[in-house]
Amino acid sequence: METLFHQMTICGVGLIGGSLATVAREKKLVGRIVGLGRTQPNLDVALERGMLDMATRDPAEAARGADLVVLAVPILTMRETFGAMLPYLPDDAVVTDVGSVKGWVVREMEPMLKPRMALVPVHPVAGKETTGAAAAVRDLFVGRRVIVTPSARSTPEALAKVEELWRATGANVERMDPDVHDRILARVSHLPQVVASALAAALGEEQVAGRPVLEFGAGGLRDTTRIAASSAEMWRDICLTNREAILAAMKLFARDFAEFERLISAGDGEGLVRLFERGRAMRERLK
Amino acid sequence: METLFHQMTICGVGLIGGSLATVAREKKLVGRIVGLGRTQPNLDVALERGMLDMATRDPAEAARGADLVVLAVPILTMRETFGAMLPYLPDDAVVTDVGSVKGWVVREMEPMLKPRMALVPVHPVAGKETTGAAAAVRDLFVGRRVIVTPSARSTPEALAKVEELWRATGANVERMDPDVHDRILARVSHLPQVVASALAAALGEEQVAGRPVLEFGAGGLRDTTRIAASSAEMWRDICLTNREAILAAMKLFARDFAEFERLISAGDGEGLVRLFERGRAMRERLK
Repeated sequence: METLFHQMTICGVGLIGGSLATVAREKKLVGRIVGLGRTQPNLDVALERGMLDMATRDPAEAARGADLVVLAVPILTMRETFGAMLPYLPDDAVVTDVGSVKGWVVREMEPMLKPRMALVPVHPVAGKETTGAAAAVRDLFVGRRVIVTPSARSTPEALAKVEELWRATGANVERMDPDVHDRILARVSHLPQVVASALAAALGEEQVAGRPVLEFGAGGLRDTTRIAASSAEMWRDICLTNREAILAAMKLFARDFAEFERLISAGDGEGLVRLFERGRAMRERLK
Repeated sequence: METLFHQMTICGVGLIGGSLATVAREKKLVGRIVGLGRTQPNLDVALERGMLDMATRDPAEAARGADLVVLAVPILTMRETFGAMLPYLPDDAVVTDVGSVKGWVVREMEPMLKPRMALVPVHPVAGKETTGAAAAVRDLFVGRRVIVTPSARSTPEALAKVEELWRATGANVERMDPDVHDRILARVSHLPQVVASALAAALGEEQVAGRPVLEFGAGGLRDTTRIAASSAEMWRDICLTNREAILAAMKLFARDFAEFERLISAGDGEGLVRLFERGRAMRERLK
């Protein structure tokens, strides 16, 4: 395959950015890969693992020559990161991102672009609870869903090339409206995160008769709270940039949680079976 | 090892009862194993898998000759199951159970015992989301916690023999007050179940822009709702027999969930990081 871009500059060489760099380098999808980072130790890991041709903490150096910029930093730092690179970028660079919220990215990034630049907002649905370049793996995206949410500033050519890049990672690429994306992800991703983190926070310091209850946690507690280990800063940004949709999703959960409270208080066995069965039915459909 | 009991009658040959039968037979911990069941197909599976010397749906037949009765049926059917066997049991039988709630078992079962019978309430903390004799495995209890909650009707001899039986399965056996047990398990087991089931119920039928949101569920949703596949009847009984402790545990969760709502509504980024970090800290301690 011919290379899709001459130079891909990845801003934020973490789990997603680092995994994209790894597979792009291995498959020669781009000519050259530059990593922009905040901390040298993480960039050193990326260099040692052979993900990058060059690593830098200088936005100007990272920007020069990049015909593709991948914003893989926490959502709320995208503007600042991109703003620092902008004066040094080629006038027709393609700008893409991997943020978990898309409406915000479209609204905030579009006005920053130079006239000939193109924006292709992307969400690779492939998180893990681990972070950093050390967690990156070449097959992270194989068989995973990658959602592209075109904006008014997505040119057909830029869309096609960015989608080709993601397809080459082994991902299943599809297009969606940014706000539909945000409402769906609020339900199946952001809500479970808030629920898992609230459960973990509630039990972390809890004691009964002088014994920390966590000593007695078994597989169910472990599974239900696993994603609470995820990056607090990443999730802060998701909560702040997708507020309305997340609050709406939380209401859906709160309704059924309150129904459990009511049924248990009332000792309503039949109602409890019906509600637990609704949960079981969801698991059947999720398979 | 000498056998601990002449005949162990297991009432309810499901995941726990069937696994106990499997290991007890393999290690010759008891002389003879009888299974009492409600449905013939499940008993047939148990017989085919070599767990039992005899299977029956007749409580009288199951009771005769049993010096150990293991109640492994849903908690709210224990009284009825035991009542049907009682006239046919040896006068000095040892009665034990594997229920996930212990205060209720002590309060309800003690008054039913004949004068020379002994009660040893036990909770093997070894659930899975699968059910039935088909799911039983010999190593289910290896390295798992088995909590014995002595009652006024636990004789030292009966306690020692039942604990010896459980230790021989590879479990770590410890003693605890029944109400302390119930308050701890309400937090680390019953609360996560209610949270997972409420989340699963809330999302099961949910659509956005005509698309079922479950299509987009990834690893986080899968983990967080895995235990929602558990038996609705078993969990109804746990909710009905440990009401106060579960409602108290739900209040702990509801407080932090409401705090998330408040912080997201207010756009309080620092507060969100602190709350997510509390969840992360719990996961560090759970390791």
